[in-house]
Amino acid sequence: MEEFHHERDKLREECGVFGIYGHPEAARLTYLGLYALQHRGQESCGIVASDGVLLRSERAMGLVSDVFDEERLNRLSGASAIGHVRYSTAGEVSIREAQPFLVACQHGQIAVCHNGNLPFASEERRALEREGAIFSSTSDTEVVLHKLARSHAASVIEAIPEVLRDTEGAFSMLFLTPAALIAIRDPRGFRPLALGRLGDAWVIASETCAFDLIDAQYVRDIEPGEMVVINDHGLRSSHPLPHRQHAFCIFEHVYFARPDSIIFGRSVNESRHKMGKRLAIEHPADADIVVPVPDSGVAAAIGYAAQSGLAYRHGLVRNHYVGRTFIEPKQSIRSFGVRVKLNPVRDLLRGRRVVLIDDSIVRGTTSKKIVRMVREAGATEVHVRISCPPTIGPCFYGVDTPNKSDLIAARMSVEEIRDFIEADSLGYLSLEGMLEACGFSPDVACVACWTGRYPTRITREAETMYEREHEPVP
Amino acid sequence: MEEFHHERDKLREECGVFGIYGHPEAARLTYLGLYALQHRGQESCGIVASDGVLLRSERAMGLVSDVFDEERLNRLSGASAIGHVRYSTAGEVSIREAQPFLVACQHGQIAVCHNGNLPFASEERRALEREGAIFSSTSDTEVVLHKLARSHAASVIEAIPEVLRDTEGAFSMLFLTPAALIAIRDPRGFRPLALGRLGDAWVIASETCAFDLIDAQYVRDIEPGEMVVINDHGLRSSHPLPHRQHAFCIFEHVYFARPDSIIFGRSVNESRHKMGKRLAIEHPADADIVVPVPDSGVAAAIGYAAQSGLAYRHGLVRNHYVGRTFIEPKQSIRSFGVRVKLNPVRDLLRGRRVVLIDDSIVRGTTSKKIVRMVREAGATEVHVRISCPPTIGPCFYGVDTPNKSDLIAARMSVEEIRDFIEADSLGYLSLEGMLEACGFSPDVACVACWTGRYPTRITREAETMYEREHEPVP
Amino acid sequence: MEEFHHERDKLREECGVFGIYGHPEAARLTYLGLYALQHRGQESCGIVASDGVLLRSERAMGLVSDVFDEERLNRLSGASAIGHVRYSTAGEVSIREAQPFLVACQHGQIAVCHNGNLPFASEERRALEREGAIFSSTSDTEVVLHKLARSHAASVIEAIPEVLRDTEGAFSMLFLTPAALIAIRDPRGFRPLALGRLGDAWVIASETCAFDLIDAQYVRDIEPGEMVVINDHGLRSSHPLPHRQHAFCIFEHVYFARPDSIIFGRSVNESRHKMGKRLAIEHPADADIVVPVPDSGVAAAIGYAAQSGLAYRHGLVRNHYVGRTFIEPKQSIRSFGVRVKLNPVRDLLRGRRVVLIDDSIVRGTTSKKIVRMVREAGATEVHVRISCPPTIGPCFYGVDTPNKSDLIAARMSVEEIRDFIEADSLGYLSLEGMLEACGFSPDVACVACWTGRYPTRITREAETMYEREHEPVP
Amino acid sequence: MEEFHHERDKLREECGVFGIYGHPEAARLTYLGLYALQHRGQESCGIVASDGVLLRSERAMGLVSDVFDEERLNRLSGASAIGHVRYSTAGEVSIREAQPFLVACQHGQIAVCHNGNLPFASEERRALEREGAIFSSTSDTEVVLHKLARSHAASVIEAIPEVLRDTEGAFSMLFLTPAALIAIRDPRGFRPLALGRLGDAWVIASETCAFDLIDAQYVRDIEPGEMVVINDHGLRSSHPLPHRQHAFCIFEHVYFARPDSIIFGRSVNESRHKMGKRLAIEHPADADIVVPVPDSGVAAAIGYAAQSGLAYRHGLVRNHYVGRTFIEPKQSIRSFGVRVKLNPVRDLLRGRRVVLIDDSIVRGTTSKKIVRMVREAGATEVHVRISCPPTIGPCFYGVDTPNKSDLIAARMSVEEIRDFIEADSLGYLSLEGMLEACGFSPDVACVACWTGRYPTRITREAETMYEREHEPVP
Repeated sequence: MEEFHHERDKLREECGVFGIYGHPEAARLTYLGLYALQHRGQESCGIVASDGVLLRSERAMGLVSDVFDEERLNRLSGASAIGHVRYSTAGEVSIREAQPFLVACQHGQIAVCHNGNLPFASEERRALEREGAIFSSTSDTEVVLHKLARSHAASVIEAIPEVLRDTEGAFSMLFLTPAALIAIRDPRGFRPLALGRLGDAWVIASETCAFDLIDAQYVRDIEPGEMVVINDHGLRSSHPLPHRQHAFCIFEHVYFARPDSIIFGRSVNESRHKMGKRLAIEHPADADIVVPVPDSGVAAAIGYAAQSGLAYRHGLVRNHYVGRTFIEPKQSIRSFGVRVKLNPVRDLLRGRRVVLIDDSIVRGTTSKKIVRMVREAGATEVHVRISCPPTIGPCFYGVDTPNKSDLIAARMSVEEIRDFIEADSLGYLSLEGMLEACGFSPDVACVACWTGRYPTRITREAETMYEREHEPVP
Repeated sequence: MEEFHHERDKLREECGVFGIYGHPEAARLTYLGLYALQHRGQESCGIVASDGVLLRSERAMGLVSDVFDEERLNRLSGASAIGHVRYSTAGEVSIREAQPFLVACQHGQIAVCHNGNLPFASEERRALEREGAIFSSTSDTEVVLHKLARSHAASVIEAIPEVLRDTEGAFSMLFLTPAALIAIRDPRGFRPLALGRLGDAWVIASETCAFDLIDAQYVRDIEPGEMVVINDHGLRSSHPLPHRQHAFCIFEHVYFARPDSIIFGRSVNESRHKMGKRLAIEHPADADIVVPVPDSGVAAAIGYAAQSGLAYRHGLVRNHYVGRTFIEPKQSIRSFGVRVKLNPVRDLLRGRRVVLIDDSIVRGTTSKKIVRMVREAGATEVHVRISCPPTIGPCFYGVDTPNKSDLIAARMSVEEIRDFIEADSLGYLSLEGMLEACGFSPDVACVACWTGRYPTRITREAETMYEREHEPVP
Repeated sequence: MEEFHHERDKLREECGVFGIYGHPEAARLTYLGLYALQHRGQESCGIVASDGVLLRSERAMGLVSDVFDEERLNRLSGASAIGHVRYSTAGEVSIREAQPFLVACQHGQIAVCHNGNLPFASEERRALEREGAIFSSTSDTEVVLHKLARSHAASVIEAIPEVLRDTEGAFSMLFLTPAALIAIRDPRGFRPLALGRLGDAWVIASETCAFDLIDAQYVRDIEPGEMVVINDHGLRSSHPLPHRQHAFCIFEHVYFARPDSIIFGRSVNESRHKMGKRLAIEHPADADIVVPVPDSGVAAAIGYAAQSGLAYRHGLVRNHYVGRTFIEPKQSIRSFGVRVKLNPVRDLLRGRRVVLIDDSIVRGTTSKKIVRMVREAGATEVHVRISCPPTIGPCFYGVDTPNKSDLIAARMSVEEIRDFIEADSLGYLSLEGMLEACGFSPDVACVACWTGRYPTRITREAETMYEREHEPVP
Repeated sequence: MEEFHHERDKLREECGVFGIYGHPEAARLTYLGLYALQHRGQESCGIVASDGVLLRSERAMGLVSDVFDEERLNRLSGASAIGHVRYSTAGEVSIREAQPFLVACQHGQIAVCHNGNLPFASEERRALEREGAIFSSTSDTEVVLHKLARSHAASVIEAIPEVLRDTEGAFSMLFLTPAALIAIRDPRGFRPLALGRLGDAWVIASETCAFDLIDAQYVRDIEPGEMVVINDHGLRSSHPLPHRQHAFCIFEHVYFARPDSIIFGRSVNESRHKMGKRLAIEHPADADIVVPVPDSGVAAAIGYAAQSGLAYRHGLVRNHYVGRTFIEPKQSIRSFGVRVKLNPVRDLLRGRRVVLIDDSIVRGTTSKKIVRMVREAGATEVHVRISCPPTIGPCFYGVDTPNKSDLIAARMSVEEIRDFIEADSLGYLSLEGMLEACGFSPDVACVACWTGRYPTRITREAETMYEREHEPVP
């Protein structure tokens, strides 16, 4: 059986989190919340619930709707819960990496789940190991648990800000104890975290689309640097972390988040639509139709078409039944990987000059296959337009990016890339255009993957580790 | 666990077929072909392969990519195969109904799979039972097998046209014997059946999108009334069935088929695009944006927008991880069933007058939920446009339709339906408009579900049976 | 993964049946009954239940306790049920062969399960095929269903004796219709069939151990040639089949049945104990201890020890966690197959002269491995004693036997066998001794596998078919 | 679904361990070794293998033969491995408790598996928590890992004796690092641990029956207080732990170990046989037959019969297909739990005075059911004989015992127990008789469960914790 996801040639969000406090069906609503966040991680998922006394955990490899059944959800009794969807890197250690983590320490039971990344975690891990710590995973999140366990603060709630005060990096984290749900977001606010209300219960999620599914109301974002503690006395907010310049991850708007979500207080769909419009201004094309690479390219393509006056056409059809693995025939099938997911509508493409809208080019191999497929379907010209700038640097804040050397834009000029992907023309949205489309000032945005300028220090080690890539310890 | 598909409020194709002859990886390519036809039936699937001596069968409930793994495909050795995807009605007897059927009789082993329906099958079944036949399923297809087995023709190949000569109804059928693949299509040609080439091998499929995935070339349609026999001596075509007026199922173009398929020699996408344009002419709307109910409404919505000059917007986002069952919370969630699949993009809908394009209204309950959801997302007006006429009659040719009494358009006027679904306005495409959009003359089209005029005799019993609906015997 | 059952070197019962009428938990008690009969067939199992109107079926590959869960049993509603455990021969067609079979015909729905074998079934099958019958399995039982369906008798209950009147062979059969449970046993009574009572409900089973588990009382055997019809009017017995000389399968007492069952009105344990005693008289051994090959050899070994005065010792320990498949290392392990199931108690065997009691030698390969293993564990002499005569002929009445050429005793003398299995001495119980031990007169016993004299005609074809062995059609 | 193991009324060994160093099929042989040790723990199992650089882990709930398949074993590459079978107490946290544990610390990756129990672990755990440790399980074994991780010894190999030097309790432990397999046994030697040879590879197992299956040779026991380090330089033995009086667990000989194993250098079968003989001397019975409760009572029953001159009979048949869960009918079935596993051979018991031999009585409820079942099967008298003294105290060294208050012998006199279980007479083997039968002097035996005199200090807490029983943290 051929593992099929090697075909995936996208940057990937590493996870989504969901939490709820004060609802008799806490685990069940967490399950639905995770289901709505499934696009943020499809390889493992987990829920920890509290009945006020004891935390219970269920984690497994696979999709939320496959992993959880009545029996499993029934084991997760109680009125508060946190959950996590994850995309994991190395196969063999994966269940060990699945979150939420649940441990016991002097502060009692603690569960945690984390969207983000702590670039200095391996340094800290080595220091903790020297002090006698044992690690069950390779996760940076486990470092935080160790530091919490070592804190002499009076309680977990006091220990969390103490431990995270000086932690550099991206963290939108949820903690669950028998009696409280705690959410905290790093001072730069790299990754999103939204607060909502469902009747008397509080809900917290990476994206607001998780609220929509369960009829919860979006209240506001958890602010960068804010900690929110929810227990039977209600919700208490504080800002225990040092103030930093904000650094919202713009890639959330370009690709990761669902278009129906509000991220950093802004509609994702609106950002994408405007990216498409800007792209049409910056890189017009003498063409007949505008075609998105579905589904992430749709909003930008509509924007491009609207601005350019070219006709919007759904020229690539996505197969909705793609499973994780796929049995390939031994005989070669051209562009097999792409075809399993996408098929051209020949009637639309034949004889047409096509503007193809995608959100990014990572390695370039998939783009090349798509361009070929569109051309073989009869397009006379293929003009590729990308709704963000060339991706030249890895992310240290929670996005899975390949080594720098695998990023095609880190090695090639735009013209070389165009040649590689066999397009007739290629245009990337400018940094300014993208930021303007999203409505964010450069001051509050993290654009490191396009500029190589990181908002935090980056350890030499982090960079080196990145090169060694995904080393599996333990 | 709440079975989730009760929410499905669409007419449903009852199956898709695929066959291949003369390829060392016959079963594997059949698996891929079925995968591309998955939208035609998601509840069971099966493959029968021949190694020239023996037929072997694998059938199971579930999606193609879930059911088949290397081990199962490896058991299906040989250079020819047929496969089937199916949507089955009654739960408990389902695996018994899964095709292809494989039996042995005086003509040796025969496997069959069938897209279509034989309205007189239950009459014939009773006659056969009186003569001593035993039935393992409730399927009309099994009747054909019995008649084949009873034929004194010299071979299966001669028996097939003999048996089907007087069979009224819709049948795009594939037969497999140890030595031959036989395809036959009823003289009216209700359901599609396409012939293709993959190197030296012949392939046959319900839709051409199955050819695309495996790099096969579409050659032509199997014609209405045509029988094709493929064996080691090559392909031999004949027209053994009596000539009849053609009656192509227009609903294939409206909803069933994938837009990237060519059906009855015509691009489905083109038909839908033109339906949208005609709809804009017949039922214009004073509105701001055109929004499809994804995914089937997309092409028509683009056409509507193009014709009307209104902006096309992707205002409903489809969730791509929908499983078959879904655990619902006990607390009520408004429009839960719809929300698991669709979420509104509030930013797009808020304050807008929306034209909502869908392909059909069956019971009306889902349409009502969608209209409400769009309105709650902030739309000021919701104008529903349907890309075909009101559906007033059940289908007897292979489409799963509810009882006539459940078809909202059989009971209500357009205005009453509009009121029921709470839309501000409602417009259905006219019969003429639809046919023109598809490029078919009324003479060659089956439009019975919209007119109640059936191209074949319909037994009283068939109609009665329909009322009793899905009786499970045995 | 190495399929492990190739190691199995025993004759095998081909199935066990269970039926119940008039109990609200019919399916659940059938499940328990089958569980107690699991030793009669471990490869597939199935239950059909009737709610008075409709028959419902659940069949699967695997053990009863693995296949059936609450959900599956709950689908089998109703107050009557029949069930079947089976050992199937060819892998790929197995689920198609799993019983009970459930079909519909002019007499309505009929389910059937069968313990036994009909040697003339393939002749009849060909005749039926010539008349137009289609077959879904290779089973002889399906022939009976076809004949029932063709009968013009007024009802199934009248059709059954009509059809079976001239059927040669072994059949302990249960039929279920929506309104009745029918049991019938062939006039020779090859295979057992017992009738019991559980409160107001009637139960029928291949062995009485199935009654014990559910607290039912053994009433009597269904007699050879007897048909019992149980419906809401009670139990009605008749003897519609022609009288024949009885031919009870003695191998049931030698090996198949559980020692705690009463078979043909006689305690199996008592028969085995007496076989052991007779064996000690016929083939005494100058030895130290008597050791059974567990578990089937235990009762005879105790009898041998009792008679001989030698010490009984449990010198081979059976592993209770044997699964169906077992992953073998690539390096060779001596006697791997036997060792996975049996391990010697060295302390007991070391330095001892051992009498090893087994119930039969089929191919001889396993016996050889056991003798070697015992010797390597330190036994100074190994004297093998078999509690029946040499097996020289295949069975045509429901026992899976290898081709005659694979039966070691059909090719070799006792001395040659002794040499082959490397025993110091070898003794088989005489036919007379065996019959006397069982308390059956030669007149009522089938001893064909030891004498080659079959109680019925055997078609040339049956014998030939046997040689071709297990041909998979369809 | 009714969990069936509540019926289990036995003391339970908490685990078995297996290790191998220097064989290309290390994981596969570990799988076989664990399979042979399955009787020591049936609820979870796991293997960690080393390829010289990296340790990889596979753990799951269930039986060895169900959990491991080719795919899973193939992931465990390398020439050394350790494995564990376990019986876990609390359902919901079970996978978290499954061993081997695998962690990373300053000494690199370490895996551990443990047979035994450390009574002071929870004290130590609290101390470690105060120092900042986090715990992923409730296991005492995790405490050892923390102490190893905190050790400033130069390597794991030096850290192990340092950490365990002052650890009170029972531990037969295996550690695996990328480069070495380390075995260590507590100075009192509570639990067994045997060393063997397979070609050039070394193997270590809880019982020698694991060697038999893979053709390995038993070399000797790992001695109490001994540590063995095996790496590419060979095997190195040392005795780093303080000398203590030996305290071999006699219950291994009474019940836990397989009769074909050599435990503490002595054949288990021999011990049991002699227990039976002594029991016949100490508690003769005026009876007809001696019947074991299979399978653990078999050897003692044979001994009892041999000594007493009474006839040994296999009067209770064990069902070999018992699964973990069993669906019970709603109607009551007398002694259902016992019947699913055991059935009486009525023919043997009817009219007989029966001596029933069992290895222990824990709560007495199962014994009562068996006595009743034997009597209902027709026995005129039932004399129960137990092959060890009354069990009056819980075990703190690796055996799962109920609270003291649930041990029937802690609350009742022998006569009261006899009355409770409804036996005609009841006799327990004396302590002296048992020890003599096993060939151990009282000086080297742990008999605490029969005398209440523990070989080590027992913390007040340990005792209290025992009363609170199985509290699930975390």
